[in-house]
Amino acid sequence: MPATHDERSGDPAAETISYLGPAGTFTEAALRVAPQARGHHWKPVNNVGEALADVTAGRSRAAMIAIENSIEGGVTASQDALAAIPGLRIEGEFVVPIRFSLAVRPGTMLVDVRTIAAHPVAYGQCRRWLGANVPGHTHLPAASNIASAAALFPDDGDERAPADAAITPPTIRDYVDVEVIADGLEDNSTARTRFALVGMRRTVPPRTGADKTSLIVELPDERPGALMDMLEQFATRGVNLSMIASRPIPERPGSYRFVMDLDGHVDDARVADALRGLRRFSPHVIFLGSYPRADGAPVDVSSAYTDAHYAEADAWFRGLVDRE
Amino acid sequence: MPATHDERSGDPAAETISYLGPAGTFTEAALRVAPQARGHHWKPVNNVGEALADVTAGRSRAAMIAIENSIEGGVTASQDALAAIPGLRIEGEFVVPIRFSLAVRPGTMLVDVRTIAAHPVAYGQCRRWLGANVPGHTHLPAASNIASAAALFPDDGDERAPADAAITPPTIRDYVDVEVIADGLEDNSTARTRFALVGMRRTVPPRTGADKTSLIVELPDERPGALMDMLEQFATRGVNLSMIASRPIPERPGSYRFVMDLDGHVDDARVADALRGLRRFSPHVIFLGSYPRADGAPVDVSSAYTDAHYAEADAWFRGLVDRE
Amino acid sequence: MPATHDERSGDPAAETISYLGPAGTFTEAALRVAPQARGHHWKPVNNVGEALADVTAGRSRAAMIAIENSIEGGVTASQDALAAIPGLRIEGEFVVPIRFSLAVRPGTMLVDVRTIAAHPVAYGQCRRWLGANVPGHTHLPAASNIASAAALFPDDGDERAPADAAITPPTIRDYVDVEVIADGLEDNSTARTRFALVGMRRTVPPRTGADKTSLIVELPDERPGALMDMLEQFATRGVNLSMIASRPIPERPGSYRFVMDLDGHVDDARVADALRGLRRFSPHVIFLGSYPRADGAPVDVSSAYTDAHYAEADAWFRGLVDRE
Amino acid sequence: MPATHDERSGDPAAETISYLGPAGTFTEAALRVAPQARGHHWKPVNNVGEALADVTAGRSRAAMIAIENSIEGGVTASQDALAAIPGLRIEGEFVVPIRFSLAVRPGTMLVDVRTIAAHPVAYGQCRRWLGANVPGHTHLPAASNIASAAALFPDDGDERAPADAAITPPTIRDYVDVEVIADGLEDNSTARTRFALVGMRRTVPPRTGADKTSLIVELPDERPGALMDMLEQFATRGVNLSMIASRPIPERPGSYRFVMDLDGHVDDARVADALRGLRRFSPHVIFLGSYPRADGAPVDVSSAYTDAHYAEADAWFRGLVDRE
Repeated sequence: MPATHDERSGDPAAETISYLGPAGTFTEAALRVAPQARGHHWKPVNNVGEALADVTAGRSRAAMIAIENSIEGGVTASQDALAAIPGLRIEGEFVVPIRFSLAVRPGTMLVDVRTIAAHPVAYGQCRRWLGANVPGHTHLPAASNIASAAALFPDDGDERAPADAAITPPTIRDYVDVEVIADGLEDNSTARTRFALVGMRRTVPPRTGADKTSLIVELPDERPGALMDMLEQFATRGVNLSMIASRPIPERPGSYRFVMDLDGHVDDARVADALRGLRRFSPHVIFLGSYPRADGAPVDVSSAYTDAHYAEADAWFRGLVDRE
Repeated sequence: MPATHDERSGDPAAETISYLGPAGTFTEAALRVAPQARGHHWKPVNNVGEALADVTAGRSRAAMIAIENSIEGGVTASQDALAAIPGLRIEGEFVVPIRFSLAVRPGTMLVDVRTIAAHPVAYGQCRRWLGANVPGHTHLPAASNIASAAALFPDDGDERAPADAAITPPTIRDYVDVEVIADGLEDNSTARTRFALVGMRRTVPPRTGADKTSLIVELPDERPGALMDMLEQFATRGVNLSMIASRPIPERPGSYRFVMDLDGHVDDARVADALRGLRRFSPHVIFLGSYPRADGAPVDVSSAYTDAHYAEADAWFRGLVDRE
Repeated sequence: MPATHDERSGDPAAETISYLGPAGTFTEAALRVAPQARGHHWKPVNNVGEALADVTAGRSRAAMIAIENSIEGGVTASQDALAAIPGLRIEGEFVVPIRFSLAVRPGTMLVDVRTIAAHPVAYGQCRRWLGANVPGHTHLPAASNIASAAALFPDDGDERAPADAAITPPTIRDYVDVEVIADGLEDNSTARTRFALVGMRRTVPPRTGADKTSLIVELPDERPGALMDMLEQFATRGVNLSMIASRPIPERPGSYRFVMDLDGHVDDARVADALRGLRRFSPHVIFLGSYPRADGAPVDVSSAYTDAHYAEADAWFRGLVDRE
Repeated sequence: MPATHDERSGDPAAETISYLGPAGTFTEAALRVAPQARGHHWKPVNNVGEALADVTAGRSRAAMIAIENSIEGGVTASQDALAAIPGLRIEGEFVVPIRFSLAVRPGTMLVDVRTIAAHPVAYGQCRRWLGANVPGHTHLPAASNIASAAALFPDDGDERAPADAAITPPTIRDYVDVEVIADGLEDNSTARTRFALVGMRRTVPPRTGADKTSLIVELPDERPGALMDMLEQFATRGVNLSMIASRPIPERPGSYRFVMDLDGHVDDARVADALRGLRRFSPHVIFLGSYPRADGAPVDVSSAYTDAHYAEADAWFRGLVDRE
C-alpha cells in the first residue's frame, strides 16, 4: 500500500488531521481535494467520535468528517457532535461523488467471480448492477470500503483468498495492487457526500465571494411560528439558506435545534447583521464557521444587501442626528 | 385681549414659534403645555403652510402644527408638508382635548340667545347640544374659534353686536372679557387633537424611556406584501408602531408613503437597528425625530430587545472570530 | 337656486340619500358622479352624524360621506362612525377634485373686490392666490362653500350685500346666479376628497374586476408584530392594501383599530380566504363592503392567487384522500 | 430460527409487508410495534429500493422503511424515493430505540471472546464499550445485525465457528439459540430510529388528535425569503412543524425540496387550509399522508385555529353578504 500522506519527516511542523480510515475511504478522498490538508499527516481513525476527540484533545489539528448524505454513516452523529462539543469550527467543505468499482486480483475475469467482498452499506447500493452482472454470487461482508480489497489476498498461512472480487472506490489502485474490471456499480449515479474539515481555530478563512456559513440554532420556544420568526432574521437581511435540517434536542423532548448553512461569509455585513439578530432571538446560537463553498458558485446578493448598501445605510443613520 | 407670550423685551435671545392663530386656538393651547415654548415669542399665522414657511425661511425657530384628528383642519396638509419639506424635525408632541363652551357678553342669559357665532367646523360638532338647548337659533359663521367671540361686541360705529353667544374653547376668558354660561357643548367628549412642535434642529431631545419616533417611508415597489416586508423591519426588532397611515404620493399615482410613529427613541439600540434596516429596504425614509410621548407612558420593551441585550449580542458577535 | 334632484313626484318609489349640504357642496358633487344616486331624492343635512342617523333610522336609504382627505371636515368622524354603527356598508366610492373659484355678482370686476366670503377652511387653502391677486381684502366667514355665495346678495331689507366676492366650488353657477371671474384659487391643485355612499343593504355590487373592499379590524393584542401578523393574512393570499390607517379605540386606551381598503371583491376567492383568515385572527372584523374602484383601474392579480388557481388547489386537495 | 410472522396459511387474505431483513433487524422491530402489520406476511428484502419496488409493483401491500436517523442506512434514499415515486403514502410511524447486546454461544464467557462479528456501522457505534471490556479483540464484519449471530456457529463442514461473540439487537434470542451476556453496548444510549409504514392506499387513518402529516414541497423560486414565505403558510394557520429537512433536487442544481412533518391531520381544518395554501404557493406539493404520532402526544392547538374556530369564521363569512 502507498505511504500515507505524511511529510512530517521533511517538515517537523506538519500537523495531524484525523479522518475515518483506512486510507482509500471516501473520507480520505475528501482530504485529497482539500488544499488545507496538503503537507500534513493524515491519521486514520475508526469513527467520527474518535476523529473529533483527537481534535478536542489536541492530538490532531483538524478532522475530516461526513456531514451530509454519507455512505459511510455518521451524519447525524456529526451534526449532534458539532452541537455538543464547544469550540468546533468548519474550515472548509468538500464534496465527493460516491462511485463504486469492482476490483479483482490481476488476471481474474468477471465470469470467474463467485464471492464478492463489500461493506454492507456499499453492497446495498450496488444491488442492481450485481443482480444483472454477477447473479448467484456470495456476499462476504467487509469492515470498510478498503478492507474489502484485502479479502482478495490470502491471509498468512492460507492458500485461498476469501473473495474473488471487491466493491471499492474507483481509486483503489492507488492503495492496493488490484485490477478494476468494472466502474459505475452504484444504483444512484448522482449520490455524493459532503465532508467538512473541522478544527478549533478561531480565525476564519478569508472571504472569497463564494462562501458559506454554518450555524446551529435552538428555538427559544415551541409555539408555531417560532421557526418562521427565526427565518425572518435571514430574510430581512436578504440571506439565503442552502441547507436546513431540524434535529431533536435529546435533553429536551419536543424541542428542536436547526442545523443550517447560509450563503455568505461572517465578514459580509448582511451575514454579520443576521448573526447578531439571531443571537438576540435565541440564546443558543452556535457559529460553526465561514468557508468557501465546495462548488465555488458566487453568492448572488440583491443590491439592497451588499456591503456598500449597508455602509450607505450606516452613514445615513450616523448623519441623522447631530450630537452636541 | 391678553398680550401674546412674548418675552422678547426681557430676553433679547427669545426665539419665535409660529402657530395657527389667533391667540386662544387649540393650537395655542398646545403651545401652553409645551415646555419648549416657554419664554419664546409666539407668532400667530393663518395656516400650516405659513407656519412651516416661517421655519424654513428662518423667521421662526419652530412651528406648532396639528398632525392628527384636528378640528381646525390641515392634518393631511401637515403630513404632506412633513414629507415634502426637507429637514423638518418634530421636537415634541402635545395632545389637547377638544372642548367647546358657550361664551356671552357678561349678563346675557341662555334664554336670550338668538344668534350664535361659531367656526363652521366647531358648529358642526355641537349640533346635538345646540338642538337641545338653543333650538331655533341662527348660526353666524366665524373665521376661527376665537374670532367667534369677537362677534359678541359691536364693530366700531355699530350699535348692536353681530351675535349673542359664541362657541369657543373653554379658555376664552383668558383672551376676551366674556362670560362662559355652558361647557361641554361638543357631541364627542373624547375628541382630542395631536399637535407637533416642528423645527429644523438636527439634535434630538434626550431619551426619557417614554419616547416616540416619527417616520415617513415609501415602499420600494407596489407588490402585495411590500408593506408587510416593511413592517418586518420593526417586528424583527421588537419595535411597536403606535400609528400608521398610508398617504398617496401625488407625483406617483398608485404609490403610497406611510406616516408612522413607533415606540422608542433613536438612541434605543432596537430603534437604531430598525432605522438602518428600513433605509436598506427603502431608498426613501424620512426621519422626523424622536421625542417624549405626550402621555408619558413608558415603552414596554421585551427583554430580547433591550439595549443590554443588543450590547450582549454585539459582544458575542465580536468574540466569534479571532482577527489576526 | 336649482331644484334639488328630487324626482319623487315622478317616481313614487324614489328613495332618499342624505348628504352634507347645502346643494353645491363637494359632497353633492360626489352624488352627481354616483350612478346609484340618480333618480333619488337628495336630502342635505348638517354633518356626517345626521346623515348616518338618517340611514340607521330608515329615513334615508343611504348617505354620501367624505372618508379621506376632506376639505369639509369629518373624515375621522366618518371612520369612527363606520366602526361604531353596526350594519353600515359602503356601496361605492367617488373621488372629487377640490377646486375653488371666485364668484361675484354679474358685472363685478376683480379690482372692485374688497370683502370675500368664504368658509374658513376653504379660505385657508386659497391664501397664496388671494395674497397675490386681492391683497388687502377682508375675509367674511361663511358656514359652507355654498353659503359664501349667498353673501353676494343683500339680506332682505338691506341695501348692500355683505361681500363682493365668494370662494366657491367651480360649479356654483348651477345653483346661484353669479359670475365666476377666476378659477384654480386653491394652493394645492392635486387635492381631492374621497367619498363613500353608505347604506345598510346586505348585498354587494357585482364584481367588476376593478373593485375595492373596505374593512375595519382590531388587533387581538398589543404586542409588537401583531400588526404584521394581521397583514400576513393579506400577503399570504396575494391581496394588496391600497389604504391603511390606525385609529385609537376610544374605549381601550393604547389599543388600535385599522381602517383598510384592499384591492379586490368579496367574491374573489383570495379576498374571501383573507376575510376568513382575518376573522380567525381577530374577533373584531367589520366588513364594510365591496364596490367598484373610483378610478376603474383593474386589480392586477398574480397568477398564484386567481380564482382559477384557487379552484385548482381546492380540486387538488379534494383529490388527495379517498373517503370510504 | 423462529418462523416469520406469516399467517397466510390461516388467513388466505393476509397481505404482504416488505421490510429490510433478515428477521431480527431494527426494521423488523418496527413491524412488531405496528398494529397495522399484525396478521400479515412479512417479507424480508435487501434494501429500501426493493421494499418500495414491491409496493409499487403490487407484490406487497406496504413496506416498513427507516426515515430518520437510521443505523441501518438509507434515510436519504428513503426521502428521495418518497419524492420520486408517485402515490406513496405513510400509514404510520414507529420509533425504535437503537440498543446493542453481546450475544454468544451458550456457555461462552466474556473473557473467552477473541473475535466479534458485527455489522460495520453497529461496530462503529460500540467502540467505547468494546475498548473498555474486550480490548485486543478482532472484528469480523457481518452483513447485518442478525447475520452477525450466524457467525457464532460453524459453517457446514467446519469445526470452528468464525466468531466468539456477536453484536446484535437485544431481541436476538427470539431468532437464534444464543445467550446475551451484555446489554447497552451502544455509545449513545438515546439513539432511536424512526420508521414509516408506506403503502399506496389513498385513504387515511382516522384522526386521533395526536396526528402527524408528512409533506414534500419544492420552492417555486430560489430567492432568499422563499422558504419563509412557504413557512408562513403554516404559521398563519397555527400549524407547527415537528421536522424539516432540505434536500437538493438532483435534476435542478441549486434547487431544494423540503421534507416536512407537521402536527395535525388532513381532516383538521387548519391543516386542510394550510395544504390548499401550500398548493397555491408551490406547484410541487407531495402529500405523504396523515397518521398517528408514534409518541401519542396530543397536538396542542391554539384556540384560534380549532375546527370550531374555523367553522365559526366560515359561518361569519357566509353571513356577510345576502345573495339575491
